[in-house]
Amino acid sequence: MFSVSYTAVIEILGIITFTVSGTLAAMEKKLDLFGILIIGFITATGGGTIRDVLIGSTPVAWMRDMTTILVILGTGILSILFRKSFKSLQRTLLVFDALGLGLFTVIGMNKGLAIGLHPGICVALGTITACFGGVLRDLLLNHIPALFHTKEIYATACIVGGSVYVLSLPYTDQRWSESIAIFLISGLRLLALKLNWRLPNM
Amino acid sequence: MFSVSYTAVIEILGIITFTVSGTLAAMEKKLDLFGILIIGFITATGGGTIRDVLIGSTPVAWMRDMTTILVILGTGILSILFRKSFKSLQRTLLVFDALGLGLFTVIGMNKGLAIGLHPGICVALGTITACFGGVLRDLLLNHIPALFHTKEIYATACIVGGSVYVLSLPYTDQRWSESIAIFLISGLRLLALKLNWRLPNM
Amino acid sequence: MFSVSYTAVIEILGIITFTVSGTLAAMEKKLDLFGILIIGFITATGGGTIRDVLIGSTPVAWMRDMTTILVILGTGILSILFRKSFKSLQRTLLVFDALGLGLFTVIGMNKGLAIGLHPGICVALGTITACFGGVLRDLLLNHIPALFHTKEIYATACIVGGSVYVLSLPYTDQRWSESIAIFLISGLRLLALKLNWRLPNM
Repeated sequence: MFSVSYTAVIEILGIITFTVSGTLAAMEKKLDLFGILIIGFITATGGGTIRDVLIGSTPVAWMRDMTTILVILGTGILSILFRKSFKSLQRTLLVFDALGLGLFTVIGMNKGLAIGLHPGICVALGTITACFGGVLRDLLLNHIPALFHTKEIYATACIVGGSVYVLSLPYTDQRWSESIAIFLISGLRLLALKLNWRLPNM
Repeated sequence: MFSVSYTAVIEILGIITFTVSGTLAAMEKKLDLFGILIIGFITATGGGTIRDVLIGSTPVAWMRDMTTILVILGTGILSILFRKSFKSLQRTLLVFDALGLGLFTVIGMNKGLAIGLHPGICVALGTITACFGGVLRDLLLNHIPALFHTKEIYATACIVGGSVYVLSLPYTDQRWSESIAIFLISGLRLLALKLNWRLPNM
Repeated sequence: MFSVSYTAVIEILGIITFTVSGTLAAMEKKLDLFGILIIGFITATGGGTIRDVLIGSTPVAWMRDMTTILVILGTGILSILFRKSFKSLQRTLLVFDALGLGLFTVIGMNKGLAIGLHPGICVALGTITACFGGVLRDLLLNHIPALFHTKEIYATACIVGGSVYVLSLPYTDQRWSESIAIFLISGLRLLALKLNWRLPNM
């Protein structure tokens, strides 16, 4: 395991980025103040919530203290007030989003490994943790989830990095495996964006 | 706590009103018999179901006996048979809806307080209990949830009343705090309807 | 109870059919590779997942080993590669779908009976198990769920067969009741398709 502080910082950066992705999408759809904040909240916490519900880890993670709710509320209000700056930051946010993607995958997988789930199931659980907040965001905004039709390398990065994580675990220290997985997922995602890699046509 | 009979009566009135709001919306979308009843059911039970799933209180509330299912089935059939009368009753139903909103918020919050969740989390839990049946209704009818874009004072009333509830708890008897919260939420909702109060433009 | 092998075979046939129904619908909507597979997965496992979450049986069924995930992955890939053949098989698939409908209803009901839920609640639980994967499929593909507006005899068959199951249980061996229920649900569904039975106009 990482030291608490290191993981906690990336986790909060991930929550912030996912919140911004939700609030910006909600503002484009002309939602009201409550709608914008709640879409931000569900985008940031939805994946972890589905994970906790599927494995029976309740109350779900965001309910255990006020940190998540306050970080999201603060981020949501800032993204409403400074929406133009946030939009111009979208390229920068993609980097945090990619880091969050990697970290959330690993956090989700660790929860599955801790209760003895099959490694293959843990890869699915990590991918759900990282990706399904965005699925809920799109569902609530009445879109077909982008994850399912844009051919972007997103969930695919989680599956590849997650598989490497469980395959490498028997041979290395857990910290090393975690770092490799996060680096691989984030790197794959950013490379795919840069080089415009896509899923094959169906 | 209220005496069982008093709360039970308002709770059943709340279930009836939420069912009617679901079945009327479903009939407008030309759903079939099963669709109308199931949308009524999900509108009435959805918020409490999400609450119970999030905190791990399972089997969820409506599964514990046949009361809820029978009340909803009866209400649903009546609302199909007498749809014209129900539509002309919509103003009256708004009063029960406001009462249900207050009561469901307090019921949800009490469940959170009982398992020791942070008061701020309990406000969120109460708001989810009262409002997310309607979110599921809109989602299944393929709308962006009204809760997120109409600028109505609805969830906001739950948040205000719920906050007053937890803030007043240390200073008064729980029954008093509950009554004040229900009165405040229902009153705020009805006043906002009457005076056309809205969330600010974004 | 059936012997494991007999039930397991029908269950896997049911999973395969539900997966195909999901992947074919996803290909019509031009989803990408990941989207097609995940819609197939959610169509096949969604009903059982909602059931397990509602009753608190976690980790949910598909997480307990790799069987479900591998069957769905294999089926999904085959249905992409041979989509034309699968489309021409759709009439045949309706038979498996009807069998799956009956079996999934009984499996869901047995889970409810095992934890002592009211027989009427068990009928609802069985119907959810059999039908709500398709509801999630339609929701994610941005349709109003077909279950709610096509007037087809689908959930109705589950409710009728499920009611006969719980009513006959006190008088016969459980195996007999199960067989009768599955036969009744599948038969009713296929007869309704053949004879074009519909729910009444509303």
